[in-house]
Amino acid sequence: MIHLSSARTSPVRPRTGAVRPIGVGRVRLDGGFWGTRQELATRAIVPHAMEWMRRLGWIQNFESAAARGPYEHRGREFADSEVYKLIEAMSWDIGRGAEVDEETLERLIGVVLAAQEPDGYLHTLFGRPWQRPRYSDFQWGHELYCFGHFLQAAVAHVRATGDTRLCEAARRLADHVCTMFGADGLNRVCGHAEIELGLVELYRETGVDRYLEQARIFIERRGTGTIPLHEFGQAFWQDDLPVRDADVLRGHAVRALYLAAGAADVAVETGDAELLEALRGQWARTVARRTYITGGMGSHHMDEAFGEDFVLPPDRSYCESCAGVASVMFSWRLLLATGEAKYAELIERTLFNVIATCPSRDGRSFFYANTLHQRGTHTQPAIDDDGVAIRGGASGRQPWFEVSCCPPNVARTLAGLGAYAVTESDAGVQIHQYLPGSYDTAHGRFRIESAYPDEGRILVQAEAPMTIGIRVPTWAEAAVLRHGECATPVVAGAYAECILEPGATAILEFALEPRRTSADERIDAIRGCVAFERGPEVLALESVDLPEQWALEDVVVTGGPRVQDGDTVVDVALRSRGGEVAWPYGSDRGGRERGGSAPVRLTRYHDWAERGPSTMRVWIPLAG
Amino acid sequence: MIHLSSARTSPVRPRTGAVRPIGVGRVRLDGGFWGTRQELATRAIVPHAMEWMRRLGWIQNFESAAARGPYEHRGREFADSEVYKLIEAMSWDIGRGAEVDEETLERLIGVVLAAQEPDGYLHTLFGRPWQRPRYSDFQWGHELYCFGHFLQAAVAHVRATGDTRLCEAARRLADHVCTMFGADGLNRVCGHAEIELGLVELYRETGVDRYLEQARIFIERRGTGTIPLHEFGQAFWQDDLPVRDADVLRGHAVRALYLAAGAADVAVETGDAELLEALRGQWARTVARRTYITGGMGSHHMDEAFGEDFVLPPDRSYCESCAGVASVMFSWRLLLATGEAKYAELIERTLFNVIATCPSRDGRSFFYANTLHQRGTHTQPAIDDDGVAIRGGASGRQPWFEVSCCPPNVARTLAGLGAYAVTESDAGVQIHQYLPGSYDTAHGRFRIESAYPDEGRILVQAEAPMTIGIRVPTWAEAAVLRHGECATPVVAGAYAECILEPGATAILEFALEPRRTSADERIDAIRGCVAFERGPEVLALESVDLPEQWALEDVVVTGGPRVQDGDTVVDVALRSRGGEVAWPYGSDRGGRERGGSAPVRLTRYHDWAERGPSTMRVWIPLAG
Repeated sequence: MIHLSSARTSPVRPRTGAVRPIGVGRVRLDGGFWGTRQELATRAIVPHAMEWMRRLGWIQNFESAAARGPYEHRGREFADSEVYKLIEAMSWDIGRGAEVDEETLERLIGVVLAAQEPDGYLHTLFGRPWQRPRYSDFQWGHELYCFGHFLQAAVAHVRATGDTRLCEAARRLADHVCTMFGADGLNRVCGHAEIELGLVELYRETGVDRYLEQARIFIERRGTGTIPLHEFGQAFWQDDLPVRDADVLRGHAVRALYLAAGAADVAVETGDAELLEALRGQWARTVARRTYITGGMGSHHMDEAFGEDFVLPPDRSYCESCAGVASVMFSWRLLLATGEAKYAELIERTLFNVIATCPSRDGRSFFYANTLHQRGTHTQPAIDDDGVAIRGGASGRQPWFEVSCCPPNVARTLAGLGAYAVTESDAGVQIHQYLPGSYDTAHGRFRIESAYPDEGRILVQAEAPMTIGIRVPTWAEAAVLRHGECATPVVAGAYAECILEPGATAILEFALEPRRTSADERIDAIRGCVAFERGPEVLALESVDLPEQWALEDVVVTGGPRVQDGDTVVDVALRSRGGEVAWPYGSDRGGRERGGSAPVRLTRYHDWAERGPSTMRVWIPLAG
Repeated sequence: MIHLSSARTSPVRPRTGAVRPIGVGRVRLDGGFWGTRQELATRAIVPHAMEWMRRLGWIQNFESAAARGPYEHRGREFADSEVYKLIEAMSWDIGRGAEVDEETLERLIGVVLAAQEPDGYLHTLFGRPWQRPRYSDFQWGHELYCFGHFLQAAVAHVRATGDTRLCEAARRLADHVCTMFGADGLNRVCGHAEIELGLVELYRETGVDRYLEQARIFIERRGTGTIPLHEFGQAFWQDDLPVRDADVLRGHAVRALYLAAGAADVAVETGDAELLEALRGQWARTVARRTYITGGMGSHHMDEAFGEDFVLPPDRSYCESCAGVASVMFSWRLLLATGEAKYAELIERTLFNVIATCPSRDGRSFFYANTLHQRGTHTQPAIDDDGVAIRGGASGRQPWFEVSCCPPNVARTLAGLGAYAVTESDAGVQIHQYLPGSYDTAHGRFRIESAYPDEGRILVQAEAPMTIGIRVPTWAEAAVLRHGECATPVVAGAYAECILEPGATAILEFALEPRRTSADERIDAIRGCVAFERGPEVLALESVDLPEQWALEDVVVTGGPRVQDGDTVVDVALRSRGGEVAWPYGSDRGGRERGGSAPVRLTRYHDWAERGPSTMRVWIPLAG
C-alpha cells in the first residue's frame, strides 16, 4: 500500500483561504499530551470500537447486505456511519505513518464496497424488499447522514493511500444523491446534516462541480420547512430558518455544528462572502452565549440541544463528545478561511476539556455527555443485555453505548490531529496548537518542543528560513517571545511573528499560574460561583480529594488558587447545617454558619472520574 | 337522574384515618378565587376538552370499538383515559349540583360501556385482531393506567348519581385485572401507576376485598424489576426500588406521585403502618429537596422527571400541571390519614401556583409545563396539522396538546375541589382551605366567608354547636383568632381550635404583606436570587411591567417589596453592559455597573402570560 506524505493528507482541503492545512502526512508528533492520546486512539480506541461493532453486528450488516439475502439489521439507523468513521480513523493513521491492522481495514473496505447497490445507494437499513423503502424517513432515517460519513472516509482513504476504490464508490453514491436530490429532484434534506461536508470534500478531491453544487443546494434548502414537524421544534434539525438568516446556533448541537461546518465549506468554495460572514457571526454569538467554559456545547438532555442564551447549567450540561468534535470541525474551517486566532483558541479549549475528557486513560471507556457538575455517584445509565449503555451516563465512562457515535468520532479526530496544529500561507507558517513534533511545510521543516500544558514554554526551531507566527493564548500573562538576543513582550490573543533562520530558535514563554474565573451573571446556574483554570485546562473539585465526611454540595471556596507540590490547591470550607429544613424557601435560608477551611487539590477536568465513582464540580460557590 | 348529597360524593373515601372527607355533595362554594375557577371548569374547560377529543377522534375510538369492525385508533396509548377524566369531572359537577350536559355524558357512557369486551377488558388500542396484542407493552402501552382512570370515573359517577352501570363495568374490568395479574397471574406492573388508585377506590365503593388485594400486589410488585430496561433508567417508572424501601420520590413525576398516592391508599386500608411511614418520609424529603417554590414538581424535560436533590433550575422547571394534580392527590391522602397541617399547606401552595396557573382565564388554553423562568417570547411548541401543540411549550398556554392529560386532569380536580376544603372527625370539623361557601358536616352546617387570598381574614359561622379547627399557614404573621370577645394569638403551621355556638363566628386574621424569600444555597440555579410571595401566592416579574427597553435578563432587585395602589412593587435596577463580550468567563465577569432603580409591579405567578407574549422570572438576582 502506498503511503503518501503530502499536503493531500489533510482532512479538510479548501481551494482558497487565509491559511492552508499541511496534512497529517507532513507531521510527526513526538509524544506529549496529544501524541500520547493519538497513540491511544490507534492502539486502543480503534481496536476497542472495532470489537464492539463486530460483536453488535454493525459490521455484519454490510456482510449481510453484500450477500444480498434477507437479514435483520442490527443497531440504529446510523450504525453504518460508525464503521465509516473507523475507516476514516485508520486512513489518517496510515497517512501519518502509524502501524494499522491493514488486513482488518481491507476486509472492512471489501464488505462496504460489496454492500453498495448497483445505482450507488449505500445503506444497510433501507430499500431492500424486506426493509423500509429508501428515503421514507427524513427525520430519523439518517441515510444522507451515513452517506456523508462514507464520503469523508473515502476521501480520507484515497488521500492517505492513493487507493481509489472507496473514492470511486463515493462518486457513484454522490452521483446517485445528485440525481435524487438535485435542483429538479426531491426537495428534501436529511434530519441530520453531514452529507454537505462529505460532498464538498469529495468535490475538493475530484474536482467534480456537481458535488459542490449539491452541497450548496442542501445548505440553501435547509430552513425552508421540508422536514415534518416534531415535538422538539424545527430548530432541532435547523429547519426553522435558512442557514444565512440565523444569528446563533440552535437545536441539536451536533446537527447544528456539522451543518455550520458544511455551510462554511460551501461558502469558501463558492466564494459566498455573505454566508461566511453569517457563519462567523453565529460562531461568535454561540461562543459568547451558549458555550460552557470547557468549550462544550449543548445544555439540554432531552434533545441533545443548545439551550437559549446563557442557559448553561453545569449539572445538566450535555456537552456531547461528538459536539466537541463537531465544534473543532466548524472552528477549523473558519480558521482556515480567516486565519484568526480565536478559532484556534476555541479548538484548543475544546480539545483539552471535551475531546481529552471523553476516553478513559486505557481507551476502553468513554463519556458520551460531559457534565460539569456530578451530584451523585449512583447515576449509572441503563445497561442492556449486550452490556451496552443505553444512553450516555454522566457519572462514569462506559465501554459502549447504544448510540456509540462518540468513540469512533474521537478516534478519527485524534488520528488526524496532527493536521490541526499548523498551517501555512505564502507568507509563512502559523502555529495554532503546541504539539511537539516535526512539521514539513512549503517553507521547509521545523520542529516544536514543549511540555505544554504543564509548562508555558514552546520552542520552535526551523531547518530553513521562514516566517513563523505562534498563537499567544488570550489568558497568557506576561507572554514573551525569545528570539536570538531579544525577549519581546507579545500580545495575547494574536499570533506573535518572527523570522527564523535555519537552526535558530524562537521560544514563546508565558506564566501558567492557576487562575480563578468568574462568569457572566446572566448564566443563572453559576451565579456566585467560581471556576479554576490553568493554561488551557479547566480544573475541577472531585469528592475523592475532600476531607473525609465532607459532602461536595456543602463546600464553598474561601481562598486560592495556589500551587503546592505541583498541584493546584484551593481553600474550601464546609457549610454546617442544623439538620433537614422542611421547606427550602424562606426569609432565613440565605446564610449558613461555616466551619473551618481546609486546602484541597483540584484535578484536571479531563482526568475526573479516573479514580472510581466520585462527585465533581467545575463551578464552586464562593464563600460570603 | 338522582343527585346524591352525601358524604358518598367524595373522590377519596378511606375506611379509616385521622379525619374524614365530607364529599362534594355537602359543599356549595360561593364564588371567590376557587368558586370562579370551578365554574370555569364546568362551563369552559370541560366543553373545550370534549370538543377537542371529538375532533381528534379520541371519543370516536370508543364508538369504533363498540361497532366491532376494524378501525384506525386515533391519538396516543392513553387517549381513553382523557375521556374517563371528563366523565369523572362531569360526575363531580353533578355531585356538587352544577348544571352539566347530561345528554353528552349519557352518550359518552353509552359508547364506553359498548366498547367493553365480554371478558371485561376495556382499551381501544389493543387486543383486536388488527391491533397489537393485549399486554404486549408494559412500558408504554398504558393499558392498566387507562383502566385505573376508568375505575376512578366509574366510582365518581356512582357516588354522584347512584347510577351503577359504570361501576358494574368497572367491576368486570377489575375482576379481569385480578384474574390476569393476581398472585398467580402475570408478574407485571404498568409503566405508569394509576390502576392502584382505581382499585382501592373501587374496593372502598364495593367492599370487594380482592380489589384492595390486587392494588396491594401491584404496589409490592413495583420495584422488583419487572419492567424492561430503558434509557431513562428504571427509576423513571419507579421500578428501581420497592415502594417501601425508597426515601424520596424519583423518576417521572406524575408516575411517582400517582404511585405514592395509590400506595398511601393501600397502606391506610390494609393498616400497613410501616408503608405509611415510608410514604410520609418520602413526602417530607421530596418537599424539602425536590419541590419548586410554586409546589411544582419535576425538573427534567427529557423524562418529565424529578431531578436529584436541590436540582431545581427555574428555567428548566417542568412542573407538569398533572404533577400538580398528582401532588394534591398524594398530600390529600396523607392529610386524611394524619390530619397534619403541612399536607394541607402544600395542597394550597400547589393549587394557587400550579393548578391555577394551568388554564387561561377563558378556560380555552393551558400550560402543560409550568416554567418559573421564561427567557424568550419566541419558544412556541410545534403545532401539527390538527392545530395541536406537539408538546407543552413554556412561553404561552396552548389550546390542546398531543399529550393532553392536563386539561381534563385539572377539570376533574376543580370539579371535585369542594371536597378538599374541609374534613370532619368525631371531635369536630377541620378547615384546610379557605373556600367561601357552605358546608354540611356530621356536626351540622357552617359557612366560610373570605376574600382570601386578597385579604387575610377568614370568617366561620356555624348553625350548630361544633368544634372547629382552622389551619393557620406557616407564613402567617401576627395571626389571631377572634372568637366572641377574645382575640387569641394562634400558632402558625397548625390548626387553631375553638368551639362555635350556633350563630357565633370565629374569625382568623393574619397579615398578608408581600414577603421576600430566599432559598437554600444548595439550589445552585437560584443562588443570589430572591423571590416574592404574598400569602399563598408566588409573585413574578413579567417583562410587560418593565420600563421600555429594559431586558428582564439584565434586571436586579435593589429594594422592596412594598404595597403601592394595591399592587406589590419592588425596586429594580438595570445592569448596564458595554456591548457583547466575546467569552463569558474571566477574572472580570462578576460585576457590572448598574443604572438607576425603578419601581416595578409584580404579577401573581398564576396570572402570567395573560397579557400576550412576555418573558418572566420568579427568582430575580439580588443587586450587590
